[in-house]
Amino acid sequence: MNEKKEFIESINSMAGFNKWCGISVLSATEGAVEIQIEWREEMGQYSGFLHAGLIGTLIDTACGFAAATMASSNLLASNFSVNCLRPATGEKFIARARVVKPGKQQFFTLCDLFSVTGTEEKLVANGETLLCVV
Amino acid sequence: MNEKKEFIESINSMAGFNKWCGISVLSATEGAVEIQIEWREEMGQYSGFLHAGLIGTLIDTACGFAAATMASSNLLASNFSVNCLRPATGEKFIARARVVKPGKQQFFTLCDLFSVTGTEEKLVANGETLLCVV
Amino acid sequence: MNEKKEFIESINSMAGFNKWCGISVLSATEGAVEIQIEWREEMGQYSGFLHAGLIGTLIDTACGFAAATMASSNLLASNFSVNCLRPATGEKFIARARVVKPGKQQFFTLCDLFSVTGTEEKLVANGETLLCVV
Amino acid sequence: MNEKKEFIESINSMAGFNKWCGISVLSATEGAVEIQIEWREEMGQYSGFLHAGLIGTLIDTACGFAAATMASSNLLASNFSVNCLRPATGEKFIARARVVKPGKQQFFTLCDLFSVTGTEEKLVANGETLLCVV
Repeated sequence: MNEKKEFIESINSMAGFNKWCGISVLSATEGAVEIQIEWREEMGQYSGFLHAGLIGTLIDTACGFAAATMASSNLLASNFSVNCLRPATGEKFIARARVVKPGKQQFFTLCDLFSVTGTEEKLVANGETLLCVV
Repeated sequence: MNEKKEFIESINSMAGFNKWCGISVLSATEGAVEIQIEWREEMGQYSGFLHAGLIGTLIDTACGFAAATMASSNLLASNFSVNCLRPATGEKFIARARVVKPGKQQFFTLCDLFSVTGTEEKLVANGETLLCVV
Repeated sequence: MNEKKEFIESINSMAGFNKWCGISVLSATEGAVEIQIEWREEMGQYSGFLHAGLIGTLIDTACGFAAATMASSNLLASNFSVNCLRPATGEKFIARARVVKPGKQQFFTLCDLFSVTGTEEKLVANGETLLCVV
Repeated sequence: MNEKKEFIESINSMAGFNKWCGISVLSATEGAVEIQIEWREEMGQYSGFLHAGLIGTLIDTACGFAAATMASSNLLASNFSVNCLRPATGEKFIARARVVKPGKQQFFTLCDLFSVTGTEEKLVANGETLLCVV
């Protein structure tokens, strides 16, 4: 049994937008989390790539979950930043986040976002979230 | 008749995710755009505030639209950054974006996001998007 | 007598690097500060523009001072972000920063950086700093 | 003989501010660069830590150098962002940057900044720079 994963899944299930996105938690260990969504057409921007807002959603969510594996109180994102490296197209998208620096007041995190087509993974975005302990 | 507004509405209608969000274009002039969504429960994060990913969606979308009012070719977001200033709760959310510096290769933009409850507006987030001309 | 300005000048005088830069405090009011430097050749990057690191220095410093006019404890920059909008050349550079959202734990600030040549001012960069109350 | 390192050193020697900082190039390979400075008191902020502006200088400079090892034309920083993870104190500071995504129009880079005291290295900051090919 993986307690961290169960804990993150319980947070994931509390968020209406995470449900709409169909976010599933692939793994969760101390300071590191992997989440995944499957592409649907209603997730697109004007050229049919994954909308930058959903790229941000995956990065912010994975970063928040990574921090939650190490924090003893609630956390809120203060700032997040996203780089769109390549057109985000694929069957699935996997965000892998990790805590760079935990703290009493703040958590610094980083995240890479990969598109998956068949067995091929491609880095399509990266980003970071600074979370505040509340 | 407002040609800029019609142009932005036509881009808005091409994006599946914008439709799901219910983004409406309130105004569009040279270098400045206002968009709006109405709150629904499926837009929430774990405490019921507007999910940071949707805050990012509104900021990125409004910034992209503001740039599109001045650009002669297609644009893609390279980087966007979001500050979550206050818990984002309200009946509606309005994003007001403007172009800070247009260019041949890049557009720099800024955006404020307001929550609206009754007649009261509150600044809940701000952010910026750097767009690349493609 | 302007107490805010004297207070900010006292902080400014405590920082070795601010002295080297020749930062002077033009104005300081509740939540808003203006600082200035004069161009010297040793401030240049490889093409002779003001080095991006010094653009960042001015933005981070002005933002920190703006927050210090409103804070009752010490502050440290957690994250700062800089947009280089135009080549930064001029006789002087003026950074104008303001607090967007003060708080018990965090201050969100914004800053514009202008180059000055004769009487002409030009916006050459903008940016933001998120400060943590320590 | 290392041609990449000689090339980066030649750019480094052209920048007045890099000279003042005493930046030395420790290594330069395809897409990755390490630079170093030695602490001096005139580099401090008000508490005597390395000034955030100099943290930004090292991150922006290392990122630009990493991109320069892969680019065939000139580059200018469009945006850079810095996270101050821990108080930056030490005898020396080493910035290690790498290119995450090269391109015809843009280069995305990441950088870690370490303080060095004796033989101990500590991660004190990280950041990123988005460069535009000009």
